[in-house]
Amino acid sequence: MTQALRENIEDLYPTRSAEDESWSERHDPVVWSDWNAAAPLTRAQADAFERDGYIMLENIFSSGELAILRNELDAIRGGGKRLTPDSVITEPGSDEIRTVFQLEKQSEVFDRLARDARIAGVIRFLLGDELYIHQSRLNYKPGFTGKEFYWHSDFETWHAEDGMPRMRAISASILLTDNDALNGPLMLMPGSHRTFVRCAGATPDDNHKTSLKKQEVGVPSNETLTRMAEKHGINYAAGKAGTVILFDCNTLHGSNGNITPFPRSNAFFVFNAWSNRPQRPFAAAKRRPEFLGARAPEAPIAIERGGLA
Amino acid sequence: MTQALRENIEDLYPTRSAEDESWSERHDPVVWSDWNAAAPLTRAQADAFERDGYIMLENIFSSGELAILRNELDAIRGGGKRLTPDSVITEPGSDEIRTVFQLEKQSEVFDRLARDARIAGVIRFLLGDELYIHQSRLNYKPGFTGKEFYWHSDFETWHAEDGMPRMRAISASILLTDNDALNGPLMLMPGSHRTFVRCAGATPDDNHKTSLKKQEVGVPSNETLTRMAEKHGINYAAGKAGTVILFDCNTLHGSNGNITPFPRSNAFFVFNAWSNRPQRPFAAAKRRPEFLGARAPEAPIAIERGGLA
Repeated sequence: MTQALRENIEDLYPTRSAEDESWSERHDPVVWSDWNAAAPLTRAQADAFERDGYIMLENIFSSGELAILRNELDAIRGGGKRLTPDSVITEPGSDEIRTVFQLEKQSEVFDRLARDARIAGVIRFLLGDELYIHQSRLNYKPGFTGKEFYWHSDFETWHAEDGMPRMRAISASILLTDNDALNGPLMLMPGSHRTFVRCAGATPDDNHKTSLKKQEVGVPSNETLTRMAEKHGINYAAGKAGTVILFDCNTLHGSNGNITPFPRSNAFFVFNAWSNRPQRPFAAAKRRPEFLGARAPEAPIAIERGGLA
Repeated sequence: MTQALRENIEDLYPTRSAEDESWSERHDPVVWSDWNAAAPLTRAQADAFERDGYIMLENIFSSGELAILRNELDAIRGGGKRLTPDSVITEPGSDEIRTVFQLEKQSEVFDRLARDARIAGVIRFLLGDELYIHQSRLNYKPGFTGKEFYWHSDFETWHAEDGMPRMRAISASILLTDNDALNGPLMLMPGSHRTFVRCAGATPDDNHKTSLKKQEVGVPSNETLTRMAEKHGINYAAGKAGTVILFDCNTLHGSNGNITPFPRSNAFFVFNAWSNRPQRPFAAAKRRPEFLGARAPEAPIAIERGGLA
């Protein structure tokens, strides 16, 4: 069934072939619903998401909810939860936990967060479809030694290596610590989501084993990044703990290292449209493991109202 | 003569002995002149320098002067100047020039800049003495791969390894490119200049050969940096090309890496009070090379008015 679907789908975003890097227009909408007064975000927010490829949601959690999230973060980092070993990535050169994947499968609190109407409800509207979680993770950038994460479009990798057909996915980053310009915030190029950058170079086998620490394939050239930054500028997404950043799957983003004493943590969920479930990879010999890209979600997530408590 | 002087000087800032890290009060003034209406900076500026350990001077150069500085930067980086090989430091893992020392000895333009009344005149007032250049350099942090520079007090190293007796020196960083929060700006802890952090660990022989790329000895512990950052906060010094940052020799500072496409360059001069010329090192077997710390300056610099043209 999966294979049959795959054969019928035209590849609108070819990448990692023998051809050189090139730019092409996006073939998909950014906002898939027509705004109306019942929408779960304002018209200005929807317009900003369409234009910039990201928006920020502030003050949506109570202080009690934030305490619940912080406690859960501390429990996971402190060893108080049994974690699937494959789902844990450490800092280059140390044993410190950098990332824990499949967050909603390992924590009831984060499962509830992933289905919260204040986030998933907004994304369901923007994507005009039911949702499933394609990937999730807890990111921890320690103070003093937090490493940079280089510029990339998530979609390029999800398309090439996970078989995601179209640009119809949105990521939500929920800040679990205060984040300012200096402790390695998420940087984005607003408007870059409208251009698909076909990347040069074939995907090595098991590319994900190294690309999670430092991505080498599927990243734009320095020339492209310079032109994009000159055209679009670079913004950064900072705010108090509890701030939520929603960004389109094709928005170029990255983050600098962090020598300040202040760590940075966030919970990160990738919501893909139910109709955009992955096929076979478009430019890799085999799909990445389940924890990096859900292969066969059973049903759309059940979005809930009423808060985390 | 030098040795005789040295024997008579009490070490007010012992460091790198067998003792653990500890904090002590600064024994020297920060501003060595009484402000008066003829001073080359405002009373508010002098007060801010006293309080924070740094100030920024903006819009002091004309566009023509900035063009002269940028041209000289390009000539030096582009190989158009013959440079003393020992004075050039490259990026870890590449041949790109990161730093060129003894700038005023290798460039007439930068020699003139070092003696400009708008910078050196202000510093002469703050230090209440004639000046010489203890160290100078052109710093270049490339886009994409610019590395971080870890937190440190310059004075600790100059005292331990160069024999600078007292806290009576000020650094001037002249931005040669626009610098914002994201491309690795100078970060400072305002008020940290009032505390001397005695560092643990002896100085290895030829420590400067590695410490210029990554400093391991003479840096405060993470515990101290965390306490200092919580007490003082962290500011960053950003601005348009031509902005000048003056900071006290004991202000804790550092900079993050830079993955943006935008490089960052500055010219950096350390002005030491003539009466504070170095003796033998206070905590190293021998002095660092001349290009890192002038050993026997012949005369104070001749400060000039009238602009760079």
